[in-house]
Amino acid sequence: MTLTRNQPINPIPQTRNQKTQSQSSSSSSSRSGMKLIVPLQGVVQGRSGFLLGISIPCALFYFLQLYLKRRRPNPNPSSPSSSSSPTLLLPRTSSRSNLSSRGSISRVRLSKLATILSKPDDSLYYLGLDRVSKDPYDVLVNPHGIIQLGLSDNKLCFDLIEKWLVKNLEGSMMGNGDINLSINGIVPYQPHHGLNELKIALADFMRQIMGGSVEFDPSNMVLTSGATPAIEILSFCLADQGNAFLVPTPYYPGFDRDIRWRPGIDLIPVHCRSTDNFNLNIAALEQAYSQARKRGVKVRGILISNPSNPVGNILTPDMLFSLLDFAEDKNIHIIADEVFAGSTYGSEEFVSIAEVLDSEYIDKSRVHIIYSLSKDLSIAGFRVGVIHSYNQAVLEAAKKMSRFSSISAPTQRLVTSMLSDKRFIQEYIETNRNRIRRIHDEFVDCLNKLGIKCAKSSAGMFCWADMSGLIKPYSEKGEHELWEKFINVAKINITPGSACHCIEPGWFRICFTTISFEEIPLVIERIRKVVESCKSSS
Amino acid sequence: MTLTRNQPINPIPQTRNQKTQSQSSSSSSSRSGMKLIVPLQGVVQGRSGFLLGISIPCALFYFLQLYLKRRRPNPNPSSPSSSSSPTLLLPRTSSRSNLSSRGSISRVRLSKLATILSKPDDSLYYLGLDRVSKDPYDVLVNPHGIIQLGLSDNKLCFDLIEKWLVKNLEGSMMGNGDINLSINGIVPYQPHHGLNELKIALADFMRQIMGGSVEFDPSNMVLTSGATPAIEILSFCLADQGNAFLVPTPYYPGFDRDIRWRPGIDLIPVHCRSTDNFNLNIAALEQAYSQARKRGVKVRGILISNPSNPVGNILTPDMLFSLLDFAEDKNIHIIADEVFAGSTYGSEEFVSIAEVLDSEYIDKSRVHIIYSLSKDLSIAGFRVGVIHSYNQAVLEAAKKMSRFSSISAPTQRLVTSMLSDKRFIQEYIETNRNRIRRIHDEFVDCLNKLGIKCAKSSAGMFCWADMSGLIKPYSEKGEHELWEKFINVAKINITPGSACHCIEPGWFRICFTTISFEEIPLVIERIRKVVESCKSSS
Repeated sequence: MTLTRNQPINPIPQTRNQKTQSQSSSSSSSRSGMKLIVPLQGVVQGRSGFLLGISIPCALFYFLQLYLKRRRPNPNPSSPSSSSSPTLLLPRTSSRSNLSSRGSISRVRLSKLATILSKPDDSLYYLGLDRVSKDPYDVLVNPHGIIQLGLSDNKLCFDLIEKWLVKNLEGSMMGNGDINLSINGIVPYQPHHGLNELKIALADFMRQIMGGSVEFDPSNMVLTSGATPAIEILSFCLADQGNAFLVPTPYYPGFDRDIRWRPGIDLIPVHCRSTDNFNLNIAALEQAYSQARKRGVKVRGILISNPSNPVGNILTPDMLFSLLDFAEDKNIHIIADEVFAGSTYGSEEFVSIAEVLDSEYIDKSRVHIIYSLSKDLSIAGFRVGVIHSYNQAVLEAAKKMSRFSSISAPTQRLVTSMLSDKRFIQEYIETNRNRIRRIHDEFVDCLNKLGIKCAKSSAGMFCWADMSGLIKPYSEKGEHELWEKFINVAKINITPGSACHCIEPGWFRICFTTISFEEIPLVIERIRKVVESCKSSS
Repeated sequence: MTLTRNQPINPIPQTRNQKTQSQSSSSSSSRSGMKLIVPLQGVVQGRSGFLLGISIPCALFYFLQLYLKRRRPNPNPSSPSSSSSPTLLLPRTSSRSNLSSRGSISRVRLSKLATILSKPDDSLYYLGLDRVSKDPYDVLVNPHGIIQLGLSDNKLCFDLIEKWLVKNLEGSMMGNGDINLSINGIVPYQPHHGLNELKIALADFMRQIMGGSVEFDPSNMVLTSGATPAIEILSFCLADQGNAFLVPTPYYPGFDRDIRWRPGIDLIPVHCRSTDNFNLNIAALEQAYSQARKRGVKVRGILISNPSNPVGNILTPDMLFSLLDFAEDKNIHIIADEVFAGSTYGSEEFVSIAEVLDSEYIDKSRVHIIYSLSKDLSIAGFRVGVIHSYNQAVLEAAKKMSRFSSISAPTQRLVTSMLSDKRFIQEYIETNRNRIRRIHDEFVDCLNKLGIKCAKSSAGMFCWADMSGLIKPYSEKGEHELWEKFINVAKINITPGSACHCIEPGWFRICFTTISFEEIPLVIERIRKVVESCKSSS
């Protein structure tokens, strides 16, 4: 599903134009056909040079038309436009009773984008999610169902969230002693880009989650219903249809959807390798940039996910500086998706690009941060995301676009209250980190015992596992077949590297926060079956 | 703010092409200039016909080029592309310390759309909303502030909503005896296009609100965070950038935003007149359609708001049949925005297009209904909208796009519970209708006494008032000046007809559900001041 609206669009209704042109040219060609003989006689006879003079340019013009017509691509052969649709040539009647007997004469046309999106997904990422939704594992109801390890949902601390909600739900939305709220605060229209109270609470939460070493300004924020629309809105702001962003691979499969579909912006992969633990290097970035420019593509930005999804590694401050230099040198934007900033468990410390920006000589107006509460606070169902930008024009435009993705006021009140409960948040952050670390360490250890190594990682809800030894052939096809074994035989949904545009086959993203610690043996047992069947067949 | 991404985009870098063409043609023209004399002599002398034969087609070709070049629009003169931006020609250095001393050499470029949206709004509709937000009337805190009569917010029944929330909030979201809910139902990811329970409850609410005479199928629904993204998503589904929808005027100012901005679809006004009480007629529709086709514009649909916003009149079943015939004949879509379906107070009965469709011979796949709970249930802050389509491909595509506009799960649970409370809903619908009728009748009566007549209406939260007698000159300028008097002198924000693309100057939309019945005299008094000042100055 990588096709987008960004198709070559010809604003002129070509078919008709061409027809008229070719008709007139073909009539002139028949004329010129006849005239080729007559004037040649004339030339021989020393007269009729006038006719020859007319016929030569006409013939040249005809062949030029023919050449251009053949070179021009057929506009949307799969989706006939209403003007050229052959079905429209059927005799029509305005009598409704006649129409009924034949049904609809011509199916009404959809947009190119809808025509593509209406078909089933071809990415294994979405296919996997779809398969789980039809046969989800449940220890009691469906113990042989598919276990979801393909979605970064964090269920490790639902108990804490539930406890808080039971205690605080009513007061947080309808007002209590602490908060002076009335029905006017939740029922009528509210600012589309988010309530100021929530922005303040969120800025403080982000500061906390990032170790207290960086401040976020609520007035630089536009709230959206999740990180997904935040990325889409930013894309609409930063680039025009047909422009491109550079994206280090492997990358989160959703970026294709958020940036290509409606904004029509292309993603140019910058391949990172296992030999570098999939760390980004500036040389690869420079190369991808200059190759794009050579192809005539306008690169408008670089999109990084830090901590990386799917690898789980973290960009060093040095790399962030280099990225800022690179962006300044090329005069392009940086979009930093930092949604996993608080879900760290490793030895590396997360540093937000906002912290690096504090150096005064850096132009902040090109830096835009995406954050959400779906990962670090695990309330994905609440749909709370944010664009934090230093560019006032981007903020103004994003505020206007946020009408299409605004968060419901009751949820905003609820989340404001939750984030403002300092004791709860402190407890949540610590407990969540401990639980992620514990399950990560155990899960990766178990994989190691099966002979599966993972990339070195420090954050996120997944490991990036090297199963290249299990695939045959060593190609995307082999990877695809292994994925099918996992979902069909082992009943486990994981995300293959190809869905993340990884250049090396055999890597898989496995989310471990969708299960409980106690379910690890069950999952590992299912993986073991596949590993053993692969080894026995090789 | 009517400019959009939908600029005439020429995929060929025109300026260069044209230059080459005109250069070659102008050189041929200088040749042909000289040659016009020489061959004429030759003709006279009975020779050089060959040269004349060459020069005539060349001259014709030159003038054709000149003609086409003049007709072609200049692509986006206001937003220079980076390749042509003069700032980029400045010498650059990669040294950061150098950069710091001069600040950023070249401002990073935004998209064309963001460049437009980052500027202040030029529509009086948005200007008015903005003015109110800065100086809102409050009887206690700011009694001389601006009274909001420019937004279709219905505050008449907040007491009922509040009473229900106080009683049911906690149970509806966290589960109680009736509803078996767990934390898994609100905290993790839920289907982006809405919970099935909410779709069922909403379908039932729509049936109720439309008099019980039509059924809606929950499986034909895609839920969105309000009608605004519902319209945008439908637009992305039904038409490509540069295509157009026909829209009867006067129309809701938000349509320009929802359909032009990001989908890049043009809106072609179909003007309705005061002499017809602004009712649509098919002849005007036919004319607008054929004129658009002549201009080479592909019309993909017709967008109606029924009941009409801003007029408040209702389409008759006969007109709905005619519209369906028209759409079938042209093979285009119908988008029916029915968000005011339940806010009726007049003698005319509302009939949904869904009801008309029950005739078996109509092709339903071209009909798409927009609905929301912002108007009829007055919970605009909750952001609950829906696309109801009979086209499976549209539903599939819209489901995928709904990720960018999904409703938070807590709100979905809350609203499901509210809609499922039959007794409450019954009471709400009746009370709301009675209160709208009462305030409408009183308000219109008071306006009449001031000499201001309103269009005949039966639904909505506004009256469409004829103040053409108060404007001088009788033009958009006069209308603008009157609007300024209202907002600056009378401190009242109302929506001028020009913001609704009304072809006749002097009409204003006045929302009366944003105030209480008791506040009518205050509002009327403020209006009276303007009326009297206009009369005294004329």
